[in-house]
Amino acid sequence: MAGKITVMGAGSWGTAFAKVLADAGTEVVLWARRRDVSEGITETGQNRDYLPGVALPAPLTSTSDPRLALDGADAVVLAVPSQTLRNNLTAWRALLPRGATLVSLAKGVELGTLKRMSEVVVDVACVPDDQVAVVSGPNLAKEIAEEQPTATVIACRDHDRAVALQQACTTGYFRPYTITDVVGCELGGACKNVIALSCGMADGLGFGANTLATLMTRGLAETSRLGAALGADPMTFAGLAGLGDLVASCSSPLSRNRTFGARLGRGETMAQAQAAVGGQVAEGVKSCSSIRELAMRHGVEMPITEVVHRVCHDGFDLTEMAGQLIGRKTRPER
Amino acid sequence: MAGKITVMGAGSWGTAFAKVLADAGTEVVLWARRRDVSEGITETGQNRDYLPGVALPAPLTSTSDPRLALDGADAVVLAVPSQTLRNNLTAWRALLPRGATLVSLAKGVELGTLKRMSEVVVDVACVPDDQVAVVSGPNLAKEIAEEQPTATVIACRDHDRAVALQQACTTGYFRPYTITDVVGCELGGACKNVIALSCGMADGLGFGANTLATLMTRGLAETSRLGAALGADPMTFAGLAGLGDLVASCSSPLSRNRTFGARLGRGETMAQAQAAVGGQVAEGVKSCSSIRELAMRHGVEMPITEVVHRVCHDGFDLTEMAGQLIGRKTRPER
Repeated sequence: MAGKITVMGAGSWGTAFAKVLADAGTEVVLWARRRDVSEGITETGQNRDYLPGVALPAPLTSTSDPRLALDGADAVVLAVPSQTLRNNLTAWRALLPRGATLVSLAKGVELGTLKRMSEVVVDVACVPDDQVAVVSGPNLAKEIAEEQPTATVIACRDHDRAVALQQACTTGYFRPYTITDVVGCELGGACKNVIALSCGMADGLGFGANTLATLMTRGLAETSRLGAALGADPMTFAGLAGLGDLVASCSSPLSRNRTFGARLGRGETMAQAQAAVGGQVAEGVKSCSSIRELAMRHGVEMPITEVVHRVCHDGFDLTEMAGQLIGRKTRPER
Repeated sequence: MAGKITVMGAGSWGTAFAKVLADAGTEVVLWARRRDVSEGITETGQNRDYLPGVALPAPLTSTSDPRLALDGADAVVLAVPSQTLRNNLTAWRALLPRGATLVSLAKGVELGTLKRMSEVVVDVACVPDDQVAVVSGPNLAKEIAEEQPTATVIACRDHDRAVALQQACTTGYFRPYTITDVVGCELGGACKNVIALSCGMADGLGFGANTLATLMTRGLAETSRLGAALGADPMTFAGLAGLGDLVASCSSPLSRNRTFGARLGRGETMAQAQAAVGGQVAEGVKSCSSIRELAMRHGVEMPITEVVHRVCHDGFDLTEMAGQLIGRKTRPER
């Protein structure tokens, strides 16, 4: 993929991925929704809002003009929140260069349509599905920005596109592997947000590593069951986009889902937790509902996702639900 | 298994498992090597040396006389360090009740013979292998002693024996699942000590959750490869005795292997790290050599185990090995 890659979205992950591309020697343009952000990047060589303290390499340029950003791009990396992807992409549709690989960094299942992000891209951009790639793995943006050694997975049904993208983003600290299982890669990324929420809840309730490990093991098992029903390769869930991503999200204090869940576990209401993190809810709060619905549609049991959904959306009390979260009563029988 | 179960070994895990058995309503005798420990348990209802602050239920009795302990036992739980199991069991061999289920709590591969713990038991006790069971899972003793909700796996080729043991140790906070894959269950438990060591090393070197998650994912993959070569069921590694145990050991500050590895990662020598933890080395330090040899014998590549072995036993410098630990150079190319 000799040529230009455009990253649409200058949040922490979009910015870190743009840095990776630039460090790999790829020409990269980072589009920011807010003009002050793109101007700040141009002037200071930093994204002070979303990745403060990280020097962005000089070849990386930034703009808030989508037309300028997308013009002549060989690949377009979509780095916007999953539930806003459809609206954003609709606005950019006419500007997308014909034939460009469309790359999703978003993790989630769309509310209402129950579509995975690559399906939303196919839908909106009217491209064949082998033109869409997905990047997913144990990828905490802040650590990648610090150039900590990180592996990831690039999934695309078109192996050649995956390899071209792989070459465009391989650096000394970032090692992407290619796979063709887009479904498994996306489900791993979407479901881990929900499992990380549940791990946060358990942590907030005061449970330790045994419970956490049990939740992660069972969580990955229910993810794999959903994957099997949707045609994913079971091996994907044992890899970086499954187990790897899950471990990073569930064990790091940097994980928004984990910390949001911990607030609920300590007794905060949804509203209190939301207010405490600046009004945003964690992605898992949204995805738990669409994943649950997807599972019901395919007759798959996902007990952990069910509990997270009930606590987040049906007003169930987490303390009372704790027994179901871990599959049993929490107190000894005697 | 209506009857008596004897736990041989009053360390933290043996004591916690004896508590579980007693809480499940099973008659249990806890044998301690040191007489002051067994007398302390009898007098205070606590094992102040290995599980201080935890009240042991009254039906649990303790002795330091192996003859008294083993007399009439329907099951004998072996809770001694893996590298001492052979010698201990040889001393008890004549006292083992005929037909009793022999249960291993030890995790490791014997140095020299390269035998798994259940194989050592079969060897020494001269019993058929379907008389031997293994308990393994995300089971940090301290958390179980606090009655935190925990799941585990009981593996036995004889399903009926596994079910009897399951019934004898099911409580409100401890839920055992049965499987027949003894090989996978034991390899999961042995190899995770080595992977936890590597995670500790990475942590000590200053790497974050991305690297940790990558090590755990690759570590479980190399464990599964060894398992496949030895006839284990690959699904075991995705379950509580594989992924579950690995996550608990790699993420908890209670894990001896993790904390020992972190000392090495921070630059302590083996001798310094060993002195700092009271002269003991972590189990993974021993097992990395036997697991590596087992892998070589079966032509299986285990790169993480290899690095851990070289650092612990061949005097390699961890800082220089870090690149190999994570499969690549640690610094950016430019």
